[in-house]
Amino acid sequence: MPPTRFAYLGPVGTFAEAALRRVPAASTGILIPAPNVVAAIDAVRDGDADAAVVPLENSVEGSVASTVDALADGDPLTIVREILLPVAFVLAVRPGTAAEAIATVATHPHAEAQCRKWLAATLPAASVALVASTAAAAESVARGEHDAAVCSALAAEHNRLRPLWTDIADNTGAITRFVLLARPGTPSQPTGNDRTSVVAFIRANSTGALLEVLTEFATRGVNLTRIESRPTKRLLGQYCFCLDCDGHVAEQRVGDALAALRRVCADVRFLGSYPRADEQESPAPAPGRADVDFTDAAAWLARVRADGSG
Amino acid sequence: MPPTRFAYLGPVGTFAEAALRRVPAASTGILIPAPNVVAAIDAVRDGDADAAVVPLENSVEGSVASTVDALADGDPLTIVREILLPVAFVLAVRPGTAAEAIATVATHPHAEAQCRKWLAATLPAASVALVASTAAAAESVARGEHDAAVCSALAAEHNRLRPLWTDIADNTGAITRFVLLARPGTPSQPTGNDRTSVVAFIRANSTGALLEVLTEFATRGVNLTRIESRPTKRLLGQYCFCLDCDGHVAEQRVGDALAALRRVCADVRFLGSYPRADEQESPAPAPGRADVDFTDAAAWLARVRADGSG
Amino acid sequence: MPPTRFAYLGPVGTFAEAALRRVPAASTGILIPAPNVVAAIDAVRDGDADAAVVPLENSVEGSVASTVDALADGDPLTIVREILLPVAFVLAVRPGTAAEAIATVATHPHAEAQCRKWLAATLPAASVALVASTAAAAESVARGEHDAAVCSALAAEHNRLRPLWTDIADNTGAITRFVLLARPGTPSQPTGNDRTSVVAFIRANSTGALLEVLTEFATRGVNLTRIESRPTKRLLGQYCFCLDCDGHVAEQRVGDALAALRRVCADVRFLGSYPRADEQESPAPAPGRADVDFTDAAAWLARVRADGSG
Amino acid sequence: MPPTRFAYLGPVGTFAEAALRRVPAASTGILIPAPNVVAAIDAVRDGDADAAVVPLENSVEGSVASTVDALADGDPLTIVREILLPVAFVLAVRPGTAAEAIATVATHPHAEAQCRKWLAATLPAASVALVASTAAAAESVARGEHDAAVCSALAAEHNRLRPLWTDIADNTGAITRFVLLARPGTPSQPTGNDRTSVVAFIRANSTGALLEVLTEFATRGVNLTRIESRPTKRLLGQYCFCLDCDGHVAEQRVGDALAALRRVCADVRFLGSYPRADEQESPAPAPGRADVDFTDAAAWLARVRADGSG
Repeated sequence: MPPTRFAYLGPVGTFAEAALRRVPAASTGILIPAPNVVAAIDAVRDGDADAAVVPLENSVEGSVASTVDALADGDPLTIVREILLPVAFVLAVRPGTAAEAIATVATHPHAEAQCRKWLAATLPAASVALVASTAAAAESVARGEHDAAVCSALAAEHNRLRPLWTDIADNTGAITRFVLLARPGTPSQPTGNDRTSVVAFIRANSTGALLEVLTEFATRGVNLTRIESRPTKRLLGQYCFCLDCDGHVAEQRVGDALAALRRVCADVRFLGSYPRADEQESPAPAPGRADVDFTDAAAWLARVRADGSG
Repeated sequence: MPPTRFAYLGPVGTFAEAALRRVPAASTGILIPAPNVVAAIDAVRDGDADAAVVPLENSVEGSVASTVDALADGDPLTIVREILLPVAFVLAVRPGTAAEAIATVATHPHAEAQCRKWLAATLPAASVALVASTAAAAESVARGEHDAAVCSALAAEHNRLRPLWTDIADNTGAITRFVLLARPGTPSQPTGNDRTSVVAFIRANSTGALLEVLTEFATRGVNLTRIESRPTKRLLGQYCFCLDCDGHVAEQRVGDALAALRRVCADVRFLGSYPRADEQESPAPAPGRADVDFTDAAAWLARVRADGSG
Repeated sequence: MPPTRFAYLGPVGTFAEAALRRVPAASTGILIPAPNVVAAIDAVRDGDADAAVVPLENSVEGSVASTVDALADGDPLTIVREILLPVAFVLAVRPGTAAEAIATVATHPHAEAQCRKWLAATLPAASVALVASTAAAAESVARGEHDAAVCSALAAEHNRLRPLWTDIADNTGAITRFVLLARPGTPSQPTGNDRTSVVAFIRANSTGALLEVLTEFATRGVNLTRIESRPTKRLLGQYCFCLDCDGHVAEQRVGDALAALRRVCADVRFLGSYPRADEQESPAPAPGRADVDFTDAAAWLARVRADGSG
Repeated sequence: MPPTRFAYLGPVGTFAEAALRRVPAASTGILIPAPNVVAAIDAVRDGDADAAVVPLENSVEGSVASTVDALADGDPLTIVREILLPVAFVLAVRPGTAAEAIATVATHPHAEAQCRKWLAATLPAASVALVASTAAAAESVARGEHDAAVCSALAAEHNRLRPLWTDIADNTGAITRFVLLARPGTPSQPTGNDRTSVVAFIRANSTGALLEVLTEFATRGVNLTRIESRPTKRLLGQYCFCLDCDGHVAEQRVGDALAALRRVCADVRFLGSYPRADEQESPAPAPGRADVDFTDAAAWLARVRADGSG
C-alpha cells in the first residue's frame, strides 16, 4: 500500500503542520505543503493528495472563512478527524536585531488580529505587513525583507530566527481547531463521543428558517456546539449555516434531525461524523431520544399502519 | 356473511340512532340500542357487536366525556368513520297538555345545557329532571312521569308526543359529531382528505409537555383540528390530550409526527385514520412536508450513512 | 357592616357547602343554597349574594363544564380563593333498606361517573337516576322516590339516611377544587405562592394559536398548571382555553405574559390571582424572569430610547 | 459650528471614502483617512473624529470581522446611517506594464477573496501580496513595489495607474454595506422603514440560547435580516450574535423584543436604529404586534392590576 499523501496549509513550520504531526498516520505518510487553504483542499479533490489538514476555526478569530467556504462549495469533502492545537505566537527576528530596530513586522492576518493590542503597545512605530502565512512571515524575515515576524516557535526555529518575545497573543489560551479532510466515504464507527458537521442552505426568508433549523435539532435533543453564518455569495441577507452538533449520523436522533433538515432546507451538505477531540463528554440522550426510543416508535408506527394495533 | 351488528347509544329515537342511519351498511345490519355510551362501547369490546355509534363531541357542549374516557381507557378501539349531525331539539308533550300545565321537564344533561336559557325564559316555573338520554325523556313523558321532554323530533314521534316548540336550542346551528367504532384493524386507504385521532398521555410536567407535543405537529406541518384535555383519573393537574389532526397515518408527515409523539409522551393511543365528514378540504402539505420529501430525505440519509455521499 | 352573603351549589349537605365551611368568613356569613351552578353564579352577578362557592374541576371527572362556561361568558367574575376538598362518597339508604332491595340509585352525573365501576360490580341490577346534586339524591331517597343515594356522608346525615357502604369511588383519593367567586375588584396582595386563572379566546386557526399562547408563557418561564379546552358555542373546532398558571398578576413575568396573550388572542378574560391551596410551592423564577430582571430591562430600554446609552 | 470630522478606512481612494462621499454632510466636513478599521473607530471613541465610515458586511465575504468585533467590544458606538455600495474591482498597473510582465499582484485579503478565481484563471503565475487596503495596494504599485493592484477605479486614478481589466470580481453584483458610526445619542425619529442592530451575548449553552433569542423576535413578529455569530474571544464554542432586525427601537414590538433579550441574555449592546438604505419596504406588523396593540394590552393589564376589571 502506498504511503498516504497529506496536504496541509504550508509552508513548512505552520501551525497546520504541527496539527498534522499529531495524526498518527502522518509519521509514515508524505507531507505536502500547499500555498493556501484552497490549494490544500483542491489537492484532495483532484486526487493529488489523500487527505488535507486545514484550520476550521479559532477561539479568538472565529471561523476560517476560506475553509468554511471551500467546504460549502465545490466537490464534497468529509471531515474525518478534528485536531485542537493551542496557538502560541512569538516575535522572531534575525539574530542581532534589537527591538528598537524593528520597523516592519510580517505576519498572517489572523495572527495580526490575535496580537494587535500587543503590537500596538510594544512596537507602536512598526508597520505591519500581511503575508500568506506565519511561516511565510518567518521566511520573509530570514530573507531580510522584514525586520520581525509574528509566527510559531517552530517556524522561527526552521528559519534560524531568534524569539525576542514569546506568548504575545492578546488572549492567551487561544486554540485553533484543525480538520483532516478526505473524499467522501463510509463514516467511521460511532465512539459514543462524536461530533457531526453539516452546512445548511436555508430557503428564502432567513429568520424563520434558522428558527426552524434550530427547532429540528432541539425537538430531538441534539445539542449544537457551533453555529456559523456565511453569506451565500449571491445577495446581502442570504445565508447558509455551518453547524456542528453532538453525536454521530449513525445515531437515530442525529440522523433523524439531519433528514428533517434535508426536508426543510433548500440544501444540506453532510461534512462528516468524527470523534470529538476535546475532553468534554457528549451528554446522554434526553428521555425519548435514545436509539431504542426511535426503534420502538418505528415499530409501533409499522404496527399501527399494518393492523391498527399500535 | 352474517349482517353487521351495530350498537348505538339508545334507546330508539336518539340522535345516535339518527347518526347510525346515515351509515349505508346500517340499512342491512342489526341495530342494538345500548343504555349508555359505555355499554355501547363495551358491546364492541366484548364481541356482542361489530361496531358502535356514539357521540364524541358537540359544537356547544364540547367533548362527550364518557366517550373520550372510554376510548382512552380499556381495550383499544378504532374510529372508522365520523358522522356530523345537526342537532335540533323540540319541547314535546302528551297531546292535550297546555304550556301552562308543564310543571316538570325531562331531558339529558347535555340537552339541558343547550336549552338552558330557553327553558329559563319560556318555562321559568318548571323543574328540570335529568335522565339518561333525550329518548328516555320522551318515554318518561309518554308514561306520564313528567309533563314535557326536551328531545329530538324523532323521539317525540316514536312516543306519540306533540312538539309544542321546535328548534329551542340556545345556539341554533349546533352539530354533534358521532363516531363509528370498531375493534382495531388495518386503517382504510387514504382518500386525500382524512382525519387522524390519537390520545397522548404526557409525561410529568404538563406545560412543557403539551408545548412539545404541539411542536412535533407544527414542525411537520400537520394541522390540529381538535385538542381536548382530560384528567388522567389520578391526580389534579395530570392530563392526557385527545387530538385530531388533518391527514392519514399512511401519509409520511402524519406517521412521522405520531412516531415522535410516541417517543416524547408517556404513551400514545392510536384512535384511527378515517375520511373527514365536513366539507372542508385538507390543505396541501407545506414545502418540505409532502410524502416525496420524506422519501427523498430518507434516501439521502441512507446514502450519507452508507458512503458519506449524501 | 352587614354579614357577607355566600351563595353555594345547594341544597344543604352538598360538597360545595362543605367547601364553603372551610372559608373563615363563612362562619359569620349568611349561607344561601342555590339550585345549580348557574344560579349560584348569577346570584353574585345580580347582587343577591356577595360571593359564591362552586366546583371548578375534579381530579377524576375534569372540568365542571357549567362553571367554566359561566365564568367564560356573561358579566365578569373573579376567583378570590380556591378550596381543595377530598371527595368521599357513601351509598346511603333509609334505615331498614337491605342491599338486596335496592332497585334504583339516585345521584348526580359526576358522582355516577366516579362510582360507575363500583355500582356495576356491586349493584348490577339497580337502575341509576340522575338528579341535580348528590344532596338532592339523598333528599329523594328520604322522600321514598329512590332506594339509595350516592352522596356525601354529610348529606346522608342531614337526611337521616344510613350509609350501607363508604368510600365507594372507583378512584380513591379524588379531590374537587372549589372556587370562591366575587365581583371584580383589586386582586389580593401576592403571597409568593399564588395561582392566576384566565380564559383565552383564540383567533381562527386553533393549532397555531394554542402553540402561540403556550409559547408566550414558556418564554417568560411561567408554568401552566391546568389547560382546559372548551368549545366557543359557535362552531365545531373553535375553542377557548381556560388556563391556570403559577404566580400572581402583580408579578412582572405573569403580567407580561397576560399582556402578550391579550395581544395575540381574540380576547382574554382575567379570572383572578389568589393563593394556592395545595401544599406545592411555586418554583422560583427562571434566570432572567424575576421582577428585578423586568425592571432592569425596562430601565435599560428607556435609556436606549432616550439617549442611546443602554 | 465647526465642520464635522469624518474618519474613514483610508487611505484616499478606498471604497470607504466612496461610501462616505454619499453622506450629504461629508461635502462640508473634514475627511480623515485612518490606517485601519480599528483606528477609524477609535478616532470617534477618543473624540478625534465626530463620526466614522467603516465596512460592516459584504455580500460575498460576509461580515467584516474587525468592524463587528470593534463594535461588540470597547466603548459603545452607535450606527446612525447605513450606506450600500456596489463593489467593482479593476486590475491596475503602471502605464506601460504588459499583462505578461505581471509577477506580483497586491491587494487586500477581502478583495483577493472576491477575485480569487479570476486571478487563478487569468494570472496563474503571479504571486499575490496581501496589504492593508486596496488603496494601499494601488499605492504600492505606484511606488514600484508590486506589478499590479486589485483595487477600485478611484484608487487607480488617484495613483495614476491604468486599469488593464475592469469588473474582475468572481461574483459581479457584489455590494458592501458601510455604516456611519457616532458616539451614543438619541436615536433618530422612526421613518417607518428602519433597521435596528444589536449584539447579543448569550449565556453558557449556545444552542438553546440562540433558539431562545430567535423566539423572542419571532413571537413579536419582528423580522431578522442578518445573523452573524462571532466567538467571544475566550473559549471555542462561546458566541455572541450580531443581529439586524426590521423596525425601530421606538416601535413597541422592537423595544419589547430588545428588553426581552436584555433579560434572557448575559448582555445586550444596542448598536442603533436607522433608516434602511435598500429599497425593500419593511412589512406591516403582524396581527397583535402593532404599537396600538401593545398600548391597548398595557392599559388592559393596568386595569386588571388596579381593580380586576380588565
